[in-house]
Amino acid sequence: MATSKRGREKKLRIVVLGGGTGTFTVLSGLKKYPLDLSAVVSMADDGGSTGMLRDELGVLPPGDIRQCLVALSTSDRTMRALMNYRFSSGRLKGHSFGNLLLSALEKITGSFDKAVEKASEILRLRGKVIPATLDRVRLVARLKDGRVIRGQSMIHDHNLHHLKKITLDPKGKANPKAMTALRTAHAIVIGPGGFYSSLVPTFLISGIPQAIRKSRAKKIYICNLMNKAGHTDGFTVKKFTEKIEEYVGGTIDYVIYNNKRPSASLITRYAREGERLVEPGPHLPRTRFVGADLISKKFPKPQKGDVLTRNLIRHNQDTLAKLILAVAQ
Amino acid sequence: MATSKRGREKKLRIVVLGGGTGTFTVLSGLKKYPLDLSAVVSMADDGGSTGMLRDELGVLPPGDIRQCLVALSTSDRTMRALMNYRFSSGRLKGHSFGNLLLSALEKITGSFDKAVEKASEILRLRGKVIPATLDRVRLVARLKDGRVIRGQSMIHDHNLHHLKKITLDPKGKANPKAMTALRTAHAIVIGPGGFYSSLVPTFLISGIPQAIRKSRAKKIYICNLMNKAGHTDGFTVKKFTEKIEEYVGGTIDYVIYNNKRPSASLITRYAREGERLVEPGPHLPRTRFVGADLISKKFPKPQKGDVLTRNLIRHNQDTLAKLILAVAQ
Repeated sequence: MATSKRGREKKLRIVVLGGGTGTFTVLSGLKKYPLDLSAVVSMADDGGSTGMLRDELGVLPPGDIRQCLVALSTSDRTMRALMNYRFSSGRLKGHSFGNLLLSALEKITGSFDKAVEKASEILRLRGKVIPATLDRVRLVARLKDGRVIRGQSMIHDHNLHHLKKITLDPKGKANPKAMTALRTAHAIVIGPGGFYSSLVPTFLISGIPQAIRKSRAKKIYICNLMNKAGHTDGFTVKKFTEKIEEYVGGTIDYVIYNNKRPSASLITRYAREGERLVEPGPHLPRTRFVGADLISKKFPKPQKGDVLTRNLIRHNQDTLAKLILAVAQ
Repeated sequence: MATSKRGREKKLRIVVLGGGTGTFTVLSGLKKYPLDLSAVVSMADDGGSTGMLRDELGVLPPGDIRQCLVALSTSDRTMRALMNYRFSSGRLKGHSFGNLLLSALEKITGSFDKAVEKASEILRLRGKVIPATLDRVRLVARLKDGRVIRGQSMIHDHNLHHLKKITLDPKGKANPKAMTALRTAHAIVIGPGGFYSSLVPTFLISGIPQAIRKSRAKKIYICNLMNKAGHTDGFTVKKFTEKIEEYVGGTIDYVIYNNKRPSASLITRYAREGERLVEPGPHLPRTRFVGADLISKKFPKPQKGDVLTRNLIRHNQDTLAKLILAVAQ
């Protein structure tokens, strides 16, 4: 419950779990409300700028953390643009400034946790950003034919139809701050986000599923809009929910999903890359399914290097925030 | 004069001119007093991290500006450490974080001037840091034998005994903000600093010597402690002062110089690299010479990559500040 005897003083505590664009969207929407907001963020990224920093400096992956920091920052536009700025030439090419900030702070303070705290101060955060683990974990996928794919960015680009097992190496231990946030939350929001690139790597951390199960929070899952080719082909909302419940080892209370079809031309564009709209499928008995038009009408400016379709069908942050608050109260 | 009819409301306006460690020391000392403090900073650096950023990103040189920002910052120790942090491995090796901050801000805001303003805000500056010029200048030395040495870092390491002429290419125009600061100052503090690496490149900017001459400010020169081999061998305090007056085209009102000999062992260590103590020499008629023990008793922690001797004989920031204020009032 959000209200205590002292009434309005006690804010609703919401923890958002994930990483990547989906989590950015949810946080950006929720930030506008007077909440006690935290993000528990996936720490398995090893691609691009983040991957180079892991390899060359031996730091923890800053990329997903950076995006959540930007989402919750109350600093001006220049500061947020600075965090996302990517150098485009020379030896710095591809590095995001925010990643460099987090890595330099990790080196100076000697701890990624302190680095995130300091960056939160610099960016005047409304809310908290919490690395799900402080261990140096790598995602590893074992296929049925015996092949082993190491690293989240490799796995992201690989077909996982014949996945046998996905693990973290080493098996990371949950950041105690993440455990506390999950245990004391009024609501835990899972996703949206890449199933094998944001959600599963977080559920695989020892202590995270346990903390979710033990928490008296309402568990809210926000289902993806599109299925990723080679990863979640043919997944319905029901199938996604069942898979999440499998990893968590407990029940999801609410599923928020999209029930609006985008234009045929947009669907065709996605289909060319093998990505299809997530269909609702039948509901599950113990879970409340909340269907709504979740698709953003705003088309974000395409960024250099983005796959075209990534920009076109995405969640509307304000609709998501309203629905989350409606079920979380 | 510092006091108006409204008494204490009007602060003494002091402009420090230069770049490098000497200017850092002066600013750090003066920062502790309630002054209206500005630094007009040399923009000819092209070595190390700064040089790579100039070449690879096409930005203006951030190095000297960064040091002045750190000197005037009222942020906590972590923030100042962050600005000076150097990456030590991978493709980022050698880059100072503060340089990357200024370069990224220049790219985002489209102007180095705005970048410095934004960085000043982030670092909660007590005072102003002003690039002497916003033109992309390079220092060029022509020797009597016809050889031409291009770039401040090359010139820094070169013997200039047979210097014919030193110029900027292109001949930079003074930043209007620098002109205003110099013209409206109560006192202009020149140096200490590398004669050919910090002071001359600033005097060569079109408009800077004129603004100094036109200003009713007291002109105070802080003489270096040691002579740099190949650059200022045998320079006395008098010779330094005459050379500065030559470049400025006007009289220096006060010269603050060191009259204390360091230990024989320290002098011997410097002598091994050809660097010798600056001797006072005779005074000049129109200038007041203020001699004092200016040498810092604190030995700063050696930094990786520093030439050993650079750390041993340096100015005491508090003594300098007191002497500057005594003559500037």
